[in-house]
Amino acid sequence: MNGLHLTADLHGCRRAHWLTDQPALATLCRHAVASAGLCCVAEQWHRFPASAQGAGGITGVLLLAESHLAIHTWPERAAVTLDVYVCNFGRDNSQAAEALLAGLLAEFAPESQHIQRLQRGAAC
Amino acid sequence: MNGLHLTADLHGCRRAHWLTDQPALATLCRHAVASAGLCCVAEQWHRFPASAQGAGGITGVLLLAESHLAIHTWPERAAVTLDVYVCNFGRDNSQAAEALLAGLLAEFAPESQHIQRLQRGAAC
Repeated sequence: MNGLHLTADLHGCRRAHWLTDQPALATLCRHAVASAGLCCVAEQWHRFPASAQGAGGITGVLLLAESHLAIHTWPERAAVTLDVYVCNFGRDNSQAAEALLAGLLAEFAPESQHIQRLQRGAAC
Repeated sequence: MNGLHLTADLHGCRRAHWLTDQPALATLCRHAVASAGLCCVAEQWHRFPASAQGAGGITGVLLLAESHLAIHTWPERAAVTLDVYVCNFGRDNSQAAEALLAGLLAEFAPESQHIQRLQRGAAC
């Protein structure tokens, strides 16, 4: 199960509605996954309650045939973290992972981002 | 949303039932999360179909108030990958993340493991 795990920590996200509108965020993620040629097999979402700082954040995951996409939003900080993890089981999904992350980064339009790339596992 | 993300890639897992018994694996994960003092807010699981190599793997995630636990199993390779990601929002959850991972490692009892520790985000 060797694979590629991309993490992205975003600040100053300019499209604030993605951070609080759970149905819209879910639709965005489904489309981004499909556009990258990856396969969603299940998903789960949770909205955190509003606080004195405003709307609550959203946590969600799309389980993929290739592994997973996870997202956490902090609207009070205009911050988002993304995880795109793909296993290269049967084929190399690295380019699809990069395409998925690029598609989501374009939508969140952060002022700053910190991306890390991890090689996971050993030879499949 | 600074935080700690632990990844663990396991081979030669000696307790094979955890890799194919989804209800048992879900119970294990719930107990491990609670034992570590973390809070599960939702979960999702998917079983992959059996193949000529035997039982299919399991993919699952527990969404946490602190971020997430994700797991993927490959029973045909006795392999498991784990992700424990905690944000230190309001308190430092790093020790809880380490405890959660240690608890799961003890249950899977792998012959070999590759653990990576990522610092995520910027100052909360």
